Amino acid sequence: MTGHLITVGDEILLGQIVDTNAAWLGEQLAAVGVDLRRSETVGDGVDEIASAIEGGYAGGASVVIVTGGLGPTHDDVTRAAVAQAFGRDLEFDQRLFDRIEARYSSRGRTMPAIGRVMAEVPAGFEALENPKGSAPGLWCEAQGRIIAVMPGVPHEMKTISEHAVLPRLVERQDEVVLSRTLLTVGKGESDLSAMIAETAEHLPDGLRLAYLPSLGTVRIRVTARGADHGDARADLEAAICAIRDTLGTLVFGEGQLALEGAVLEMLVDNGLTVAVAESCSGGAVAARLTSVPGSSRAFLGGVVAYSNAAKVGLLGVEESALEDEGAVSEAVALQLAAGARSQFGADVGLATTGIAGPGGGTPNKPVGTVWLAYDDGSTSRAVRLQLTSDREVNIALTATAALDMVRRQVLRRGR
Amino acid sequence: MTGHLITVGDEILLGQIVDTNAAWLGEQLAAVGVDLRRSETVGDGVDEIASAIEGGYAGGASVVIVTGGLGPTHDDVTRAAVAQAFGRDLEFDQRLFDRIEARYSSRGRTMPAIGRVMAEVPAGFEALENPKGSAPGLWCEAQGRIIAVMPGVPHEMKTISEHAVLPRLVERQDEVVLSRTLLTVGKGESDLSAMIAETAEHLPDGLRLAYLPSLGTVRIRVTARGADHGDARADLEAAICAIRDTLGTLVFGEGQLALEGAVLEMLVDNGLTVAVAESCSGGAVAARLTSVPGSSRAFLGGVVAYSNAAKVGLLGVEESALEDEGAVSEAVALQLAAGARSQFGADVGLATTGIAGPGGGTPNKPVGTVWLAYDDGSTSRAVRLQLTSDREVNIALTATAALDMVRRQVLRRGR
Repeated sequence: MTGHLITVGDEILLGQIVDTNAAWLGEQLAAVGVDLRRSETVGDGVDEIASAIEGGYAGGASVVIVTGGLGPTHDDVTRAAVAQAFGRDLEFDQRLFDRIEARYSSRGRTMPAIGRVMAEVPAGFEALENPKGSAPGLWCEAQGRIIAVMPGVPHEMKTISEHAVLPRLVERQDEVVLSRTLLTVGKGESDLSAMIAETAEHLPDGLRLAYLPSLGTVRIRVTARGADHGDARADLEAAICAIRDTLGTLVFGEGQLALEGAVLEMLVDNGLTVAVAESCSGGAVAARLTSVPGSSRAFLGGVVAYSNAAKVGLLGVEESALEDEGAVSEAVALQLAAGARSQFGADVGLATTGIAGPGGGTPNKPVGTVWLAYDDGSTSRAVRLQLTSDREVNIALTATAALDMVRRQVLRRGR
Repeated sequence: MTGHLITVGDEILLGQIVDTNAAWLGEQLAAVGVDLRRSETVGDGVDEIASAIEGGYAGGASVVIVTGGLGPTHDDVTRAAVAQAFGRDLEFDQRLFDRIEARYSSRGRTMPAIGRVMAEVPAGFEALENPKGSAPGLWCEAQGRIIAVMPGVPHEMKTISEHAVLPRLVERQDEVVLSRTLLTVGKGESDLSAMIAETAEHLPDGLRLAYLPSLGTVRIRVTARGADHGDARADLEAAICAIRDTLGTLVFGEGQLALEGAVLEMLVDNGLTVAVAESCSGGAVAARLTSVPGSSRAFLGGVVAYSNAAKVGLLGVEESALEDEGAVSEAVALQLAAGARSQFGADVGLATTGIAGPGGGTPNKPVGTVWLAYDDGSTSRAVRLQLTSDREVNIALTATAALDMVRRQVLRRGR
């Protein structure tokens, strides 16, 4: 199955918003075995959208996916464009209208008069329920061509994709396509692929690996294809097991979990609390931990000790350590971690201190030098990292490495 | 002038990376008066890229911009595709080769043998210097068609755009196109456009406003077009002045500045230091401030006081205030701000406390209830916000509002 993705919206062409839908859909389509050949953005015009749809099929796509332009305002013309491209009339659907109106009522709102257009459906099309918004999606299969149309609002698009579009595409595949994603931290794509190389050679035919790297973490997607569901599933399980075995503790989870979520879950499971002392990461570790709902079950708080006075006054770092070793040193990192632990009464103290850049580097401690430390009362450890020359990258990598340090230490405690 | 943008790369179609180049280029092209009609992503294939280029001109574009696929590896086929689309041969350019080789040498590296292809240029094309990387860009004007080809690495693409592509497009315009961007915080797009409505009515012909909203901030781009450079410039200046007058302190700067950068600059200019006490924003205010290089000149540090114990122990909040009013209250916000100020010895203390969600809401203090406080020793102020039901949005909006609170108070002090 080959796909063509059309994103509708003047605001995307003008750069007013970054299109994140395309990447999300690209990844999901790949996971269900749809080979996305082309992805394009067009403005809010009936002819532009209709000709993009026609162009998609003319280019050989069997599935065209359109997002955006399904709302009730006059610049939402995707319904009309789809009808035009398929040579169908738009028909008013009373039951759909009632459903949309009921959604408004249930939220104490009145459906605006212009909302009526959202109940118009091209003849022969099916409306796809939108649990997160008013505008339904659209689906049609005709002459071997599939079209799925969804609103552009990301969480509406994702919900309709997951509930309706992706499962239907899976059903329409000639073969079974299954995939799972392992989440790793601590090694880059090339190291991981070298580690997996031998395992990968012995994987059954029809299995494919894809590496999806971000800053400090790499997701590994394993996709199995085959004629038989049971066989594909067994192959996939075996491959996931083999890769997990090879990578060991580099794997921190599976699916959609963020590293900070995995770390918090692990702390809660072990009945542990954590506090942080951040210098070079400037609050990024705390911000990532608190981005997780319910983080207060394990995260007690942190100090962003940017000045030396704060390191001494709030976290009990010895002035002599700052003078002798400097703020970016093993001794200060360890004292920061111990200070965070005792100040917040936490089980675990975690600390970062380093030179994020662009200024502040010296020959012995160039920009990118970072010390991390962990202290749980019985164990204390510090590690030195040498990161990049880019401030933003250094802050992000420091936070990831610090979170991973807690994860590894807690894993070790558990043994 | 109408534009067509082609982004090359399998990794984008597969969703392995989010394409941020398209949004950046869309905004820049709009600012120089190029009307981007279509933007598309194609895979790393010669025929796919060539047919996308041909399709761009066939669709009426006068300018085609291609990014990606200019590196030295076998999957970098954009040069060959451009040559095919224009019916030209690729010619080896010895001087260009020497320049690329010299760049490698100057960094103590040897140019790999496969790097030779980066010195191949389609006949009649000009190579565009790449100050940030090895692979040069390409430029050609033929039969009223312009093509600009750039590497996909964002900072390389941006540098070549700013140095070569955008200035050339400005020169090729029949009319002068100038633009400037005002940065605002505190009101949404619709409020701003209502405020500006009367001013906008009296703006000279050829001036256009565009609103570029993000979470809590809105950029307003003003574009002037006309036959005469002096006239366009004068019109633009007058419009910027008029809008600045109307919006007053809602404007925090111009161009590319982030709010945290503007706040830090203002603190440094006024010889002030700041410290923060964050509850619901969980480190986001500190993280945004420290994302700015040189932030230590004004930012002393912060406490992420997630637990009540930390609010009392580290920031001197009275237990009675927590018991009587609750952690999310005016009294506690003010004590947090005062505590941050005194603990770090800062001129200004800033505090956030609220219910980020999704849990923790009550009828009196629903999710999204946030108190912000400011304390500089002589003035203390607190404000209550009612934000959304979304945790991520609430954290981001809280941080923006807190930074803006400091900005407004420092503005007031200065008077």
